[in-house]
Amino acid sequence: MQLSPSLSALVEALRCLPGIGPKSAQRIAFHLLERDRSGGTQLGQSLLNAMDKIGHCESCRTFSETPVCDICSNIKRQDTGLLCVVESPSDVLAIEQTGQYQGLYFVLMGHLSPLDGIGPNEIGMDVLERTLANGNINEVILATNPTVEGEATAHFIGEMCHQHNVTASRIAHGMPVGGELELVDGMTLMHAFSGRKAI
Amino acid sequence: MQLSPSLSALVEALRCLPGIGPKSAQRIAFHLLERDRSGGTQLGQSLLNAMDKIGHCESCRTFSETPVCDICSNIKRQDTGLLCVVESPSDVLAIEQTGQYQGLYFVLMGHLSPLDGIGPNEIGMDVLERTLANGNINEVILATNPTVEGEATAHFIGEMCHQHNVTASRIAHGMPVGGELELVDGMTLMHAFSGRKAI
Repeated sequence: MQLSPSLSALVEALRCLPGIGPKSAQRIAFHLLERDRSGGTQLGQSLLNAMDKIGHCESCRTFSETPVCDICSNIKRQDTGLLCVVESPSDVLAIEQTGQYQGLYFVLMGHLSPLDGIGPNEIGMDVLERTLANGNINEVILATNPTVEGEATAHFIGEMCHQHNVTASRIAHGMPVGGELELVDGMTLMHAFSGRKAI
Repeated sequence: MQLSPSLSALVEALRCLPGIGPKSAQRIAFHLLERDRSGGTQLGQSLLNAMDKIGHCESCRTFSETPVCDICSNIKRQDTGLLCVVESPSDVLAIEQTGQYQGLYFVLMGHLSPLDGIGPNEIGMDVLERTLANGNINEVILATNPTVEGEATAHFIGEMCHQHNVTASRIAHGMPVGGELELVDGMTLMHAFSGRKAI
């Protein structure tokens, strides 16, 4: 049995969702058609609206519907002189949820990865360099992921900060709170020892 | 941090997908915005198109973009005089994939479930009765699921067939091919014994 054209187009389109294969796509399509048509229509409109309207903040490159995002245009945050560099917008969300950080962000939208053709320009180093040159930033906190690529990216940005005489710091690596010593990997444990603090 | 209006609308709308909670919805939204905007737009259009265009076949109640679906309008299939009653369009798909059945279908879009307010009219018994009254059907094959509700529905439709002097049959219950005796539940095993055939 051939699925009707609109239905097979929908099943095919659903496969762009992460982790959705042909079987799941078919199950989702039938679910929406059988039980939640208004939800499906709503989702269709939200998708078109979001893909059309959401761009990137000119200043920090995160997702934004306005040319400059809410965080970047917040004068209180600008006054802190702090800039936190992260890899993705979901990292911004995670940090904001702690409620402890009050400075600005810069979102790389990835990390340096020469083998994949991702160089400094692809992660917005030109925009970051302009921000540093402005002289409004006192400290750059490098909060890229503790992976090989994340470390390389942090190192690269650290060098750039030195050229502009801006302090650069890297977030601490060590034991996660609530973790158990025997379950943590060697590298983390090594970092935990070398980064020990006097009490 | 507040998500921007379009983004939070998208995250909210994604939750209509089965099995997607708030965290997954956010992950999907970011994935589409970061890596697959054209896929997202395509999905939005396919959803709106499908929700708008796909209705139900007048004759068998399955999903169809035309008033009568391809299977129902196939004269070869009409000539068999066979009608297979199933619960959902995905059951039709499963049976069609075997390539063995050449008759027509009738899709209940559910099963009798008085506690949920699903009576004979909600599962299209009026349409089925008209089909039986036409006199073109010789045998009705009841392929509802082997659950309590599915059995009750099959029994109900069986009675209706008797009133119209149409043969009704129920698909066989027994050991699934490739299954192991010791892993199969008691009810299935009981059915396998009572439905034994001489060889």
